[in-house]
Amino acid sequence: MEATARNLGSNQLTSRFWRLDRRPQENIEDGCLSVQTETIAPLAEGQVLLRNIYLSLDATNRLWMEDIEEMYMPPVPLGAPMLGFTLAQVMESRNPAFKTGQLAMGLGHWSEYLVSDGTGLMPMDRPEGIPLPLAFGALAIAGPTAYFGLLDVGRPQPGSTVVVSAAAGAAGSCAAQIAKIKGCRVIGIAGGAEKCGWLKNEAGLDAVIDYKAEDVLAALKHHAPDGIDLLYENVGGDILDASLSHMKLGGTVVVCGLISTYNNGHLQGSGPRMFHNVIMKRLRIEGFVVLDYLARYGEAWAELIPWLREGRLKFRVDVVDGLDNAVDALRSMYTGANQGKLMVQIGSEP
Amino acid sequence: MEATARNLGSNQLTSRFWRLDRRPQENIEDGCLSVQTETIAPLAEGQVLLRNIYLSLDATNRLWMEDIEEMYMPPVPLGAPMLGFTLAQVMESRNPAFKTGQLAMGLGHWSEYLVSDGTGLMPMDRPEGIPLPLAFGALAIAGPTAYFGLLDVGRPQPGSTVVVSAAAGAAGSCAAQIAKIKGCRVIGIAGGAEKCGWLKNEAGLDAVIDYKAEDVLAALKHHAPDGIDLLYENVGGDILDASLSHMKLGGTVVVCGLISTYNNGHLQGSGPRMFHNVIMKRLRIEGFVVLDYLARYGEAWAELIPWLREGRLKFRVDVVDGLDNAVDALRSMYTGANQGKLMVQIGSEP
Repeated sequence: MEATARNLGSNQLTSRFWRLDRRPQENIEDGCLSVQTETIAPLAEGQVLLRNIYLSLDATNRLWMEDIEEMYMPPVPLGAPMLGFTLAQVMESRNPAFKTGQLAMGLGHWSEYLVSDGTGLMPMDRPEGIPLPLAFGALAIAGPTAYFGLLDVGRPQPGSTVVVSAAAGAAGSCAAQIAKIKGCRVIGIAGGAEKCGWLKNEAGLDAVIDYKAEDVLAALKHHAPDGIDLLYENVGGDILDASLSHMKLGGTVVVCGLISTYNNGHLQGSGPRMFHNVIMKRLRIEGFVVLDYLARYGEAWAELIPWLREGRLKFRVDVVDGLDNAVDALRSMYTGANQGKLMVQIGSEP
Repeated sequence: MEATARNLGSNQLTSRFWRLDRRPQENIEDGCLSVQTETIAPLAEGQVLLRNIYLSLDATNRLWMEDIEEMYMPPVPLGAPMLGFTLAQVMESRNPAFKTGQLAMGLGHWSEYLVSDGTGLMPMDRPEGIPLPLAFGALAIAGPTAYFGLLDVGRPQPGSTVVVSAAAGAAGSCAAQIAKIKGCRVIGIAGGAEKCGWLKNEAGLDAVIDYKAEDVLAALKHHAPDGIDLLYENVGGDILDASLSHMKLGGTVVVCGLISTYNNGHLQGSGPRMFHNVIMKRLRIEGFVVLDYLARYGEAWAELIPWLREGRLKFRVDVVDGLDNAVDALRSMYTGANQGKLMVQIGSEP
């Protein structure tokens, strides 16, 4: 057996991780996940040992826990570690693509350590002048999700009226600001005065609708009297219906997420009541998954990194400390309690 | 007052027409429309007098009777003649674009005669070798609806697996056969053995699913084991849901009609339960209205007319005799009782 730096005498490296024990019915009930400990085996040829620093929590994580037929990726098996996007440091490498000490991001585990063969793992240079949680939060998922969904799928024109739902969320806040940078008129929908205030005053949106305090359809008619050219949808349900009722002829709906439907256990019965507008308004409604764009991340980063550095793209991170708090933190997302991109700090920054 | 051919002494021309008296709640109840008689006034400069020969009945007629906010055109006013597509003969013309004796088609009234200023009226040459009901049925609405919806919106590739719902209907049967002509593999969904037999044996589809006798989703999985590339949707509801659950990644849904939802009075509550597949399968769902393509009808006719003449495009017409039977005939469409394009013969062919 090969000697490695971490094998100090007879001490073996152990890693705590969240295991999926039971599939959630509604709100990720207690008992669905539990913290376990495993021993990390020595690396085989081609493998790397990762020490996780940040774990990204995303609305879609809830879907990965379910065994539903119609999903964009296979479910997490029962008894297996829960999956999530992580920013990690390479502690040891037997894979020429990764160097010890380097940062890497990719689809990993809710764990302290992970042995990876490098699949889906991208080396990441620490971007100068951008704090690491901000870089990870904006560049791993949210920024590319907003960038490709808005620009590649939505294709707005300068002057387009763009509506973004869950506009204070990670992807939504990026999409709304990218639309502004590209010369659109942007209306955000969010819940509560704090989020709406941030969107108006910090992110610089043209108008903001507080769905907890206002009639969304009436507010859309007020702020966009000529209708919506492009809807960047994260929510579904009543909020999607309101926007569908106010699209312009020939408008576009980019479906990034349907978070309002993710906790009902079936993903069914949740179709838009105003679907007939697809004909009446001659709409294009198109869905996408950012994982399909991994090979093109460089395009997004080339614009996102300067925008972040120059402060043109503002991004809030909501860092929860400690792996043990991951489940509670994820639950808070479905009630809209988090303010900005939610992530868990698992280990210290190098 | 100018003397005209129809003013024989003191006799004035009268025209019987269907008037919209009340908006239907569900199945176009008795009392919603009534037959009335009006006197045709002498033509003003720019007008033409039309004698209607055939009236096209289309699923969308039901929507025109309702006063719903979200429609692709204004509702028929109460007390006004009911609208429909007609094939007529020009009896008299004070408009240089139309000659007496010529055929013309356009959006007209459910009436014996109509005075038109030529708006939305297209002169039509009687196509050689094609009976007039077939030419009108296939070329006025159904053929262009199928042609532009399938090819311009759907853009299938040779070898694509195409599913058409209401495949025995006017637009559906054209869409299915055009897809065949363009080299696709075509599966039709229709109700009943007679329609399914015609689609398989006469229209030459690759497979047919009888939604009244089969589990549509199971049958789709059987006939299209790799999934659906392009869905040409006319129905909505459960049939749309079955297809949405079996789309290929990156598939396309062209929404031509949602007839299953047109009789519920509100056009609401009818959204697809399987809408989440727009993300899971990265679908493009796009609606269209053939009226938007009027200026491009020539493109469609240039292909449709030879296909009809050569018998490559088979088209069934279901001609109901007499203006008085128009309402009953339209009602039959929502139960699927008609076999082929439904039209009413109002007057004799010239």
